[in-house]
Amino acid sequence: MLEKMTWVSPGEIEARSMEIISGEMPSGDWTDGELAVVKRCIHTSADFDYAKNLYFSPGAVDRALSLLRGGVTIVTDTNMAAAGINKAALTRLHATVRCFMADADVAAEAKERGITRAIVSMERAAALEEPVFFAIGNAPTALVRLYEMITSGEFVPAFIVAAPVGFVNVTEAKELIRSLDIPCIIARGRKGGSNIAAAICNALMYQI
Amino acid sequence: MLEKMTWVSPGEIEARSMEIISGEMPSGDWTDGELAVVKRCIHTSADFDYAKNLYFSPGAVDRALSLLRGGVTIVTDTNMAAAGINKAALTRLHATVRCFMADADVAAEAKERGITRAIVSMERAAALEEPVFFAIGNAPTALVRLYEMITSGEFVPAFIVAAPVGFVNVTEAKELIRSLDIPCIIARGRKGGSNIAAAICNALMYQI
Repeated sequence: MLEKMTWVSPGEIEARSMEIISGEMPSGDWTDGELAVVKRCIHTSADFDYAKNLYFSPGAVDRALSLLRGGVTIVTDTNMAAAGINKAALTRLHATVRCFMADADVAAEAKERGITRAIVSMERAAALEEPVFFAIGNAPTALVRLYEMITSGEFVPAFIVAAPVGFVNVTEAKELIRSLDIPCIIARGRKGGSNIAAAICNALMYQI
Repeated sequence: MLEKMTWVSPGEIEARSMEIISGEMPSGDWTDGELAVVKRCIHTSADFDYAKNLYFSPGAVDRALSLLRGGVTIVTDTNMAAAGINKAALTRLHATVRCFMADADVAAEAKERGITRAIVSMERAAALEEPVFFAIGNAPTALVRLYEMITSGEFVPAFIVAAPVGFVNVTEAKELIRSLDIPCIIARGRKGGSNIAAAICNALMYQI
């Protein structure tokens, strides 16, 4: 079995993988920047459904690149998504990633108010002074809280990557975000995850 | 849209999600312990292919539970997988998770030898004194190095979760592990990922 494997460097493996993905994926009317995001989501999951379910608001990639070039603060709803965002790329762009989910005071406040930690985390992010680029890969309640704060006029996120995975309230929460006039990239339907949220951020950063 | 969402607690959401998964997945001849792993992989990805591609070596779940009850050291090949493994469950079991990938000396050695950091990381793990439970979600070269060390008699891992995702050498590397007489759970084919490797570990720990 070992001798059947082709030995290539990690860089070559990625290039060949992207060739295979291009060869097997359906054609679409993506811009080059959007296509890079679609392909990286497939690369991360080996799941070609991401060629069907990714939504880009008009000009979303250009807006995201502009924010990332400006060293934006990315806020995730899991430490796993934060861990998956490429640190070398972040450093190069002077961008940072933050996640409030594991903070002791977030857990305490969530318990006291009887709400999810994800909701409290979004409120923490909204209280930051700088523009916030959200990368949400887990909690539909995070998206719902963002929706509430946006529609009430309390807060305007700079960008939302909306990619929670799941079977209950997930599809609906992502459609709430899609209904807003906020630049966004959304993995519609059930699929997504912390890995997909991170992959979308990485696919954007790698274009700069 | 908001009013169409059903408001339930995170615990209830998980229970309902698992019901939906049970209702939509094919039947199989899994043990209860194996079924819990399959369902959690689907829960993590919303991808029902995990009902087809998960391989369990004979008695794998029982062996894994015994190791985890004994407070085993889990070694991952990404910080993302390490971040995805439930910390409360680890603490409860006195188990630990380690990842050598971001260590400066691992990067330096990989560069000097012209090999991947994943290979060096597996060698670091093999040098640990305690039994090692591997959770590999990214690098096929990690699996190949484990295969080499096992077949040469240098090292015997306690358990291998083999779940890299990808298009080049990934399927083959997982089949190498499957050919060995080492307790393992494998996501066969292209699919897998750090999220899946973590989900498999969590599904096992949640059974204890």
